[in-house]
Amino acid sequence: MPLARIDLITGKSADYRRTVADIVYEGIIGPLKAPEGDRFQVITEHADNGLIADPNYLGIRRTKDCIFVQVTMNEGRTVEQKKAFFKHVADGLQQRLGLRHEDVLINLVEVRKENWSFGNGIAQYAE
Amino acid sequence: MPLARIDLITGKSADYRRTVADIVYEGIIGPLKAPEGDRFQVITEHADNGLIADPNYLGIRRTKDCIFVQVTMNEGRTVEQKKAFFKHVADGLQQRLGLRHEDVLINLVEVRKENWSFGNGIAQYAE
Amino acid sequence: MPLARIDLITGKSADYRRTVADIVYEGIIGPLKAPEGDRFQVITEHADNGLIADPNYLGIRRTKDCIFVQVTMNEGRTVEQKKAFFKHVADGLQQRLGLRHEDVLINLVEVRKENWSFGNGIAQYAE
Repeated sequence: MPLARIDLITGKSADYRRTVADIVYEGIIGPLKAPEGDRFQVITEHADNGLIADPNYLGIRRTKDCIFVQVTMNEGRTVEQKKAFFKHVADGLQQRLGLRHEDVLINLVEVRKENWSFGNGIAQYAE
Repeated sequence: MPLARIDLITGKSADYRRTVADIVYEGIIGPLKAPEGDRFQVITEHADNGLIADPNYLGIRRTKDCIFVQVTMNEGRTVEQKKAFFKHVADGLQQRLGLRHEDVLINLVEVRKENWSFGNGIAQYAE
Repeated sequence: MPLARIDLITGKSADYRRTVADIVYEGIIGPLKAPEGDRFQVITEHADNGLIADPNYLGIRRTKDCIFVQVTMNEGRTVEQKKAFFKHVADGLQQRLGLRHEDVLINLVEVRKENWSFGNGIAQYAE
């Protein structure tokens, strides 16, 4: 059920963007323990003046390559699961795309389980 | 007060997109019982690699035409109202645009009533 | 930590869009009391049929220039702080860009403090 919005700078390859999305998905079915196949993602490219990440907030050096990941999901995950998700995404982006660890902003938004319809106009998780 | 984000594949007509937005709005003032005129919507087109909907999650067959609808609204709606909204949107899209029932993902995000300003820099719902 | 999504009509200058973002940021570190430098913003332009704001909801006259501001932030702000933020943004847009007071829609989404990673794959606010 997570719906992930991924916002990044324009000009990366389609492969690069797909790999970002793959890594986020793997974190969702891994540390966040969503069922396999639970993949719904919106990936949007922005000109560099459309994506503003402070270059030094909390002493973390960010560049124009900073990727924003915002995931809406059901409530109920533990803090440990959330931490593991953050680490999974940052590590994966570095290992597979060479993205600096600093260049990843992640935010989670939690909702109730009846707040989803995955098709057919039905609230599949409501009961 | 609902703010609806509608994400869909690029290449549909302006009429098609407007009708999607009309149907979502009618569900908001219908089953979700928002006041008439309470219409605030962002409609974004995406290349097919910018919108990823699993083609089989929960056994529901989705295509590239899958539309994502994310509605931020005040808390307080019942599960029955939410279910009726989901059904309204999926039925409307099928009846008026021929969209398959399976090709609709809907997510609701709930907030407090003081979290809105509809203009003039005032929190119109705060009291 | 606030992540702000700013959606507006296409065709304004880069300076205009930057000033909108500056005003939102100043409201975040001002009335909402986020730390200085806490600036993460996504600014998206839309064709006029991609941004629908009712022209008269609650008796407020809106035009095609209406700007949507959606801010995801930690829970815990008071109603007074939220009201001051709304006023700051609407006043700033009018004073610095000549935008009508009516043409600003603002929505806040609140999350838990452990729901953020600002880089390095760490939940900086978790403890």
